[in-house]
Amino acid sequence: MSERIKSLQLHLGEHSYKIEIGCGLLSDSSCLAGFLQGRPLVILSDETVASLYLPRLQKILSRAQTITLPSGEQHKTLETFADIIGQLLSKNMGRQTILCALGGGVVGDITGFVAACYQRGIDFVQLPTTLLAQVDSSVGGKTGVNHRLGKNMIGAFHQPRAVIIDLETLETLPPRELSAGLAEVIKYGLIEDADFFVWLEENIASLLQKNNHRFSRQNYDAWAYMVHRSCAIKAAIVEQDEKESGARMLLNLGHSFAHAIETASNYDYLHGEAVACGLVLATQLSTQLGYTDPSQLQRVRQLLQAAGLPIKRPPSCCADVMLELMARDKKNRPGRQTLVLLKTIGEAFVEPDMQRKVLATFLSQTD
Amino acid sequence: MSERIKSLQLHLGEHSYKIEIGCGLLSDSSCLAGFLQGRPLVILSDETVASLYLPRLQKILSRAQTITLPSGEQHKTLETFADIIGQLLSKNMGRQTILCALGGGVVGDITGFVAACYQRGIDFVQLPTTLLAQVDSSVGGKTGVNHRLGKNMIGAFHQPRAVIIDLETLETLPPRELSAGLAEVIKYGLIEDADFFVWLEENIASLLQKNNHRFSRQNYDAWAYMVHRSCAIKAAIVEQDEKESGARMLLNLGHSFAHAIETASNYDYLHGEAVACGLVLATQLSTQLGYTDPSQLQRVRQLLQAAGLPIKRPPSCCADVMLELMARDKKNRPGRQTLVLLKTIGEAFVEPDMQRKVLATFLSQTD
Repeated sequence: MSERIKSLQLHLGEHSYKIEIGCGLLSDSSCLAGFLQGRPLVILSDETVASLYLPRLQKILSRAQTITLPSGEQHKTLETFADIIGQLLSKNMGRQTILCALGGGVVGDITGFVAACYQRGIDFVQLPTTLLAQVDSSVGGKTGVNHRLGKNMIGAFHQPRAVIIDLETLETLPPRELSAGLAEVIKYGLIEDADFFVWLEENIASLLQKNNHRFSRQNYDAWAYMVHRSCAIKAAIVEQDEKESGARMLLNLGHSFAHAIETASNYDYLHGEAVACGLVLATQLSTQLGYTDPSQLQRVRQLLQAAGLPIKRPPSCCADVMLELMARDKKNRPGRQTLVLLKTIGEAFVEPDMQRKVLATFLSQTD
Repeated sequence: MSERIKSLQLHLGEHSYKIEIGCGLLSDSSCLAGFLQGRPLVILSDETVASLYLPRLQKILSRAQTITLPSGEQHKTLETFADIIGQLLSKNMGRQTILCALGGGVVGDITGFVAACYQRGIDFVQLPTTLLAQVDSSVGGKTGVNHRLGKNMIGAFHQPRAVIIDLETLETLPPRELSAGLAEVIKYGLIEDADFFVWLEENIASLLQKNNHRFSRQNYDAWAYMVHRSCAIKAAIVEQDEKESGARMLLNLGHSFAHAIETASNYDYLHGEAVACGLVLATQLSTQLGYTDPSQLQRVRQLLQAAGLPIKRPPSCCADVMLELMARDKKNRPGRQTLVLLKTIGEAFVEPDMQRKVLATFLSQTD
């Protein structure tokens, strides 16, 4: 039996949807059925997640067809996108079809982008199975694939019809990926909610404790609170600014650095790990520019480390390479480097015109 | 000097835009400048159109970069789309960029789809140079590319910021393509405006008259009226139903047949030519089912022929192949064949559940 612990509504007019957070939701037909209403269904998943969770989902969605993708960020490409479209057409799937993205950020982003473009747009639901996807990528309608010349350079804003978060999937998640998800959680505390940051400082150790690879009931309550708080912060920002022309940019704290680190390190770092390094760099730069108190930089470093995250970028990410990659950031306006900085823990702001020279000096002095 | 003859507003909230119809607008900086406001510009065109009209556009948009595509429907693919994205990234074009689609339907559809997806969406303007693009594809925000398994199967609804129609480009348009555009014009009369249909019957001969390859002033007044009326009918329908869940389906009169004819004939027929055959088939079926008077079928055939259009599908389009291809139509609901039919000239309706058996018999009895 599933236990629905928390529910949340993202308000975007006719694109509004529910985020359900609970244990065992992937086996709960009453939770999913409402969104799927007898329409043709296709479940998309990757090899890793399919082997773990597809059977239980097929039990309650017996009439669904399935498409399995190869696992990994390197497959989040236009080629995989084209392949999925071809499979949907071969199956004669029409516009009434709902796609179900069962997996992490890669599966969710690519499924969402297929849904955005298949026959000019069909519905999809997110069933995120990684912490990163649960607290970040499955919420807010950003979809897309990577291009050789940059991450997420091809995509669309396309909101899901629902996000169903089954916390049980966190039990099978490798510790490294659990930590990667925590980077985005910590980011929410930094940009918007100092109390949540303090809560994380106090609870991070117990959150990561398992007995026999399983979380305790107390753990689940804490995870549910943490995922709910993260989704709520993200939802409130997306409601203000769906298409990222203003407030939504704050969600990119650390991300201009992180995208450059991911590309420069050829994806040796997971996205969340790169974000952790990016959060340190953004805080450090904010400190150097006099916005943030140095004691806060210390707290940021400590919390990220306690969450099992790296706080230094790999050696391949030298200043020159970083600068060139950061110049390509989607948020930039012509000739300008946009960067999100920190005033204090719990308050971020957008610096729309960061001087390249200052950034270059900063990067050459940090590692 | 350009002469702005007609102007039209398409009302879609924050996605509203102007349609400007005139002679010489591609050389008129005052007309274009307002939409482009000093932002980074990239003109996309195909080899044929670029050789004719790119120089005059570059004269007034000197800072624009250009991307030239190979000509023809066979290049409206995901490969061309990926290639354009790569070129935009190599040029470091940011989100403030405006794309200008200079060309016919293929250039407009693919440029619009690139604009919809590049960095999750940028602005574009339509500068249609074929009659088909001017009266149909440039208006209404349908964008996309073809897939081996079907036309326009990958795409998005993404409205342009403006549509600038320079009627002078019709002078260099091959007669066959001019006729192809007239098929969509005649369709507007059929679905919505009996008076316009009569006007076309009375004016079709003089519209097509040229002296020394040039239209007369009188011609231009007639073309301007015709293009304006067509855009106005389309705009009113799109305003009612942007995403094609209802009224917009009427615009597909003849198109379920036409798409099948295009695919089955391997694009031997231009889109407009296939639409002409499709309009005859839709009218003929409406007559057989008792909706339409046989005399009207005669008028439809005569007007299409007077416009220089074919009214019989090629031999490759046998009933079986047509049926299979039509079953894949995007408008279909599961297990049902949706078809637009005619009550009378000036009034079309959607038949959401056309019986396949009836359609099969009809197709096997017609050629």
